[in-house]
Amino acid sequence: MTVWFTGISSAGKSTISRGVYDALLPRSRRVELLDGDLVRENLSKGLGFSRADRDENIRRIGFVAELLAKHGVIVLVAAISPYRAVRDEVRARLADFVEVYVNAPLSVAEQRDRKGIYRRCRAGEMHGVTGLDDPYEPPLTPEIECHTDRESPAESIARVLAFLEPRL
Amino acid sequence: MTVWFTGISSAGKSTISRGVYDALLPRSRRVELLDGDLVRENLSKGLGFSRADRDENIRRIGFVAELLAKHGVIVLVAAISPYRAVRDEVRARLADFVEVYVNAPLSVAEQRDRKGIYRRCRAGEMHGVTGLDDPYEPPLTPEIECHTDRESPAESIARVLAFLEPRL
Repeated sequence: MTVWFTGISSAGKSTISRGVYDALLPRSRRVELLDGDLVRENLSKGLGFSRADRDENIRRIGFVAELLAKHGVIVLVAAISPYRAVRDEVRARLADFVEVYVNAPLSVAEQRDRKGIYRRCRAGEMHGVTGLDDPYEPPLTPEIECHTDRESPAESIARVLAFLEPRL
Repeated sequence: MTVWFTGISSAGKSTISRGVYDALLPRSRRVELLDGDLVRENLSKGLGFSRADRDENIRRIGFVAELLAKHGVIVLVAAISPYRAVRDEVRARLADFVEVYVNAPLSVAEQRDRKGIYRRCRAGEMHGVTGLDDPYEPPLTPEIECHTDRESPAESIARVLAFLEPRL
């Protein structure tokens, strides 16, 4: 099974996916968390943030998730993955795919701004920031949607776990 | 465990690793074969054949092998991996690493020339062919060495399996 957390920066993807990972780990050693930053560093050095490069990055994560899932590992992916088409391409390739839309309004994500990228984009120091000057295409029918402006991380984590429970 | 097959093109890496895979599969469903061409296509599009790009390609394979091995998968890697330093870097990262030097003299590999790259290189149609106009640094102390000019694929496969047997 692959659980794919998509959403803009600071929406809460890392927090929720980490919480789900921590909850699943004692029950099954076979769970893996692929965080966007880790993957960029290890699989996608040299790729930028054009649509083509973002899509290629997502395909690579999908390839690794497929290999792990094939061997019974529950794979959690936390990556912005802004484009719907490539998310659906990955979904079609993977046997058991759960899409979690981590949904925070830009204003809320921008207040958190964990990596300071919204601030830097507003200041003109960087470009291509998803949700601000680069597109984010929300999932149309995600299996789960977490409104992280209205629910706590613990609530989001519990909802994801409740959905996964009958599939474990 | 990761079993890493290194050697020049047409030395016999794919044949031997595939044979080992086929022998292990009925005993353990948790075995994976990462072949160089498959990995280039899925993880390393855009990388070329400079030393830096070849090394980056090997690091990516090492990253994926590490993820799979961590979850108990026996990972077989078949990749030219011409540079000793990055092979040793991967070895240092992976807990249980078996290096198989698939050793054929260039003259023998060139006769096989499964992909036609030696011919194209001799004809001046391509460059950067390992063993011909690009370096290959043989392992100094590989766990296993297969002399594929003097032993049959079946013999090489049997020797690799015999080495792995007590570790399975």
